[in-house]
Parts: sequence; C-alpha cells; structure tokens
Amino acid sequence: MVEISDPGDPRLADYRDLRDVELRKSLEAEHGLFLAEGEKVVRRSVEAGYAPRSFLMAPRWLDGLGDLLATTDAPCYVLSEALIEQVTGFHVHRGALASLHRRPLASVEEVLAGARSVLVLEDLVDHTNVGAIFRSGAALGFDAVLLAPRCADPLYRRSIKVGMGAVFTTPWTRLPDWYDALPDLARRGFTTVALTLSADSVPIEEAVDGVDRLALVLGSEGHGLSSRWEASSERRAIIPMRAGIDSLNVAAATAVACYVATRR
Amino acid sequence: MVEISDPGDPRLADYRDLRDVELRKSLEAEHGLFLAEGEKVVRRSVEAGYAPRSFLMAPRWLDGLGDLLATTDAPCYVLSEALIEQVTGFHVHRGALASLHRRPLASVEEVLAGARSVLVLEDLVDHTNVGAIFRSGAALGFDAVLLAPRCADPLYRRSIKVGMGAVFTTPWTRLPDWYDALPDLARRGFTTVALTLSADSVPIEEAVDGVDRLALVLGSEGHGLSSRWEASSERRAIIPMRAGIDSLNVAAATAVACYVATRR
Repeated sequence: MVEISDPGDPRLADYRDLRDVELRKSLEAEHGLFLAEGEKVVRRSVEAGYAPRSFLMAPRWLDGLGDLLATTDAPCYVLSEALIEQVTGFHVHRGALASLHRRPLASVEEVLAGARSVLVLEDLVDHTNVGAIFRSGAALGFDAVLLAPRCADPLYRRSIKVGMGAVFTTPWTRLPDWYDALPDLARRGFTTVALTLSADSVPIEEAVDGVDRLALVLGSEGHGLSSRWEASSERRAIIPMRAGIDSLNVAAATAVACYVATRR
Repeated sequence: MVEISDPGDPRLADYRDLRDVELRKSLEAEHGLFLAEGEKVVRRSVEAGYAPRSFLMAPRWLDGLGDLLATTDAPCYVLSEALIEQVTGFHVHRGALASLHRRPLASVEEVLAGARSVLVLEDLVDHTNVGAIFRSGAALGFDAVLLAPRCADPLYRRSIKVGMGAVFTTPWTRLPDWYDALPDLARRGFTTVALTLSADSVPIEEAVDGVDRLALVLGSEGHGLSSRWEASSERRAIIPMRAGIDSLNVAAATAVACYVATRR
C-alpha cells in the first residue's frame, strides 16, 4: 500500500491519459500490459490468473478489494479521486484500476481444442462492440473467439469493461493469417457461417441447422465482411428483419445469432 | 446558408457543450429542442416530420444534404470543423448537426393503437442502451415503446445516434403513471412479460408462447426491475444462459427477447 500525492509520480506511468486511445495502444504494446477498471473486473482479472503489475485505487475501494490485494505482492497506489482524475484524464466512477501483464497469445489449436461453437471477428474497430460480443458469446454458449489481424484489442480497457471480464475466461487468440482463415477453419472441421447480407444468405436458424462444430463469422460495423471472407465462408446467413430496416447493431445481431446457434 | 466565423455567435446557442449532459438536459427541456447528429440521422429526423430550428455543418457535408436543406426555411450555419469543435466541445466525426423542435408527447392510447408487440422500459439511465433498444425493437418487429417516468430521454443526441433514428419512426411516449403502469397495460389487453431473474421466471420462448398482444418489460442496467414492476407483471422470463454467467447487457438481452417474441 503506497500513498501517493504527486500526480506526476513516475510509478503511475501505467495509468496515464486513459482516454488517449493512440497513446494507450503504443504504451500498452511496448510494455506488454493492459488495464482493468472497476472492482468486479479487477477482481476477475486477477482471479483468472493474470499477474498484476500494480493497482491504483481511491481509499474507499480498498475495503472491497482487500482480500484480493492480500494475495499479491504488486504495489497498490492509493490516491484521492481528484488525483486519479488528474493522472488518468477522466473521472473513474468505480475508482479501482489494475495494470496487469499480458500473456503470450495462445495458438489457434489451443483455442479450438474442445470448442463446438466459436466466434470469428473480422475487422471490428470498436472496443465497445468487441467487449459486448465477448460477453454475449460467453453468456449464450459460445466456447472461444478468434480475431482477424485488424480486429480491435479485446484487452483494451473499454473492451474488458463492456465485456464484464468475459475476455478473461473465454479462450481467444489472433488469427495469424487473414486470407485463408476461413478455409483453414473448414479444414479443422468447422462449418463457417458468415452473418452478412448477400444474395444467397439464408435465415440464421436455417444456416446453423444440423451444424456440429460452428464458426460464426462477423464483419466490421461499417463495411461489413470483406468480399474474401464473404466468399470463402461456407454459408451466409441473416437475422430476418422488418422490411425497410437496414441493419441491427453488430453486437445485437451477434447476441441473436449466438442465441439461435446455441439451440441448433 | 449562413457562414459564421465567431464561435461565440448567439445563433449557435442550440449547439453548445454537447458533452455536458446535465446542461444539455435543461437547455433542451427549456427550449423544447433536440439534436440530431450525422448525415443519415439528420435526414431521417426531417423526413420523419420534425421541424428543424437550424442546421450546423462543416462545408463538406453541404452537398450530401443539399436536397434536404432545400426543403426547409431553417437557417444552415456553416462553420469550419475546428470551429464546430469549439462550439460543441468535441470533434463531430460526421460534421452535420440539426436542432429540431420536439413535439407534444403522444397519448398511451395513440401509441398502442394497432400495436401487437410493445417494449416497456422502466428506469434505464444509459442513453446508449435506450437507443440500441429502439433500434433492435424496430428491426426485430416491435411496434411501439413506452417509457417509465425516469427512463432516459430517447431524443437525447446519443440515444438517437445509437438508435440510427429509430425513435423517429417508432411510436413512443412516457407513461404518466409508474405504479399502475403494468396492470393498466393488462386492462388494455396486453400480456405483460418482464425480463427478470426471479424465482418463477421461465425461458422467454415459453413466456411469450401463444401471447397475442405482448408488452415486453425491461428494467434498469444496474438494479434491474423494481419490485413493484416485477410483481405486477403477469409473467416473468429469462434468456437461458450458460451456468456461472451473471447476465447479458440489457441491449443484448432485449435483442434476443425481441427476436424470440416476434416468432411467437
């Protein structure tokens, strides 16, 4: 427990300018760290076995996390909420943060071992959507998540928070290869079903009917799936919608698709 | 078309400090206005019949909305993107804004006329969730939305944006009375089904089975439904989830429930 009263203290470097997405991306990559925010998510990160580098807390959050802090040698920096706001650049509503070490990415083999239903995310750029999809996938019976090389980071603070820590308990990794990712999944015994508005798309219930190992493929918020992934998936599916409505949000569509797929 | 180069120009009063939620709430209430953001949403607001007070645009958005601007006498203030940021307090990615007149709220009778499936939101406080729920409801076959007195404003800029303007085309209103809202819906011939984790909750498919006029009732993000609404709804339902997972995000749960309910 280390009380700090100088917001410029170099020990707080992991926690600076949390709203500056570009700065955070390079800082977190260079140091191999990620941040967990909020009592519940901080707890889940440590309980999932991620090694903490340090904690940053306002005094009133110490009690709730006392048992967790007792399990680790990592320093806990204690600052007033006003100082936390100076360091991080915003008001941390649930004034508990942790900086944790990232782990080496798992191999695709490891992530797929034993999985029957996996989500495959192409170039989703919005951390909120990535987090929401991890959460829905975990709740609705999906076993693993694969990310295309340009998909947003699921260990980014915002992804973790929206996902309520589902990224800690769901096996996931990056796909090393974008171009052949879906044929590769097919070779591994997965039926690839892409959620996309194409001419031969069928309702999702029909697309997953009778499928054993399922890879549900999702494209970016704006442009949808790449033509390569659309063409190289074995089946294309839609969520049936009311006439005249253009689309569902990708996180909402994923929740519906996961619900339907889990009942196949 | 009015070019403005002074960010302090009083004609820009409708567009000030868009990130200051409390200030915006009182300003919008006092003046009976709301803001639409982004080319698509601005277009939908006017096409839905809301009367514009004014528009605020960066020069490059004029072309895309030229046809719409030609239909109205409301002034269009043209500012550089840097000046727009000074006025609004943030970088407007899609540099088109409109300020529009609110309309008197419809009566509950009007909103329910002809509706077979309605969403009833209790105290959702997050504008993003309210917007996402309007969008999913519209896409997945719901006809109307009723809001408890303390539910967040669906005409708040963020709600409209996330909902992609679904609030303009979906009949909605405020419930005048919180306490008897659900018994009142039952008297009007709706079966009230609350999405809530209670001891007698049944899977959503079972809860909506055979229901003709359906009122799907949703509680707040944090605390869920009030005990009054939980007890005064006729049926209680859950989205079946994997063991050990506590909950879905309310917007994801709503999307699943709407999908299932529309297939009843």
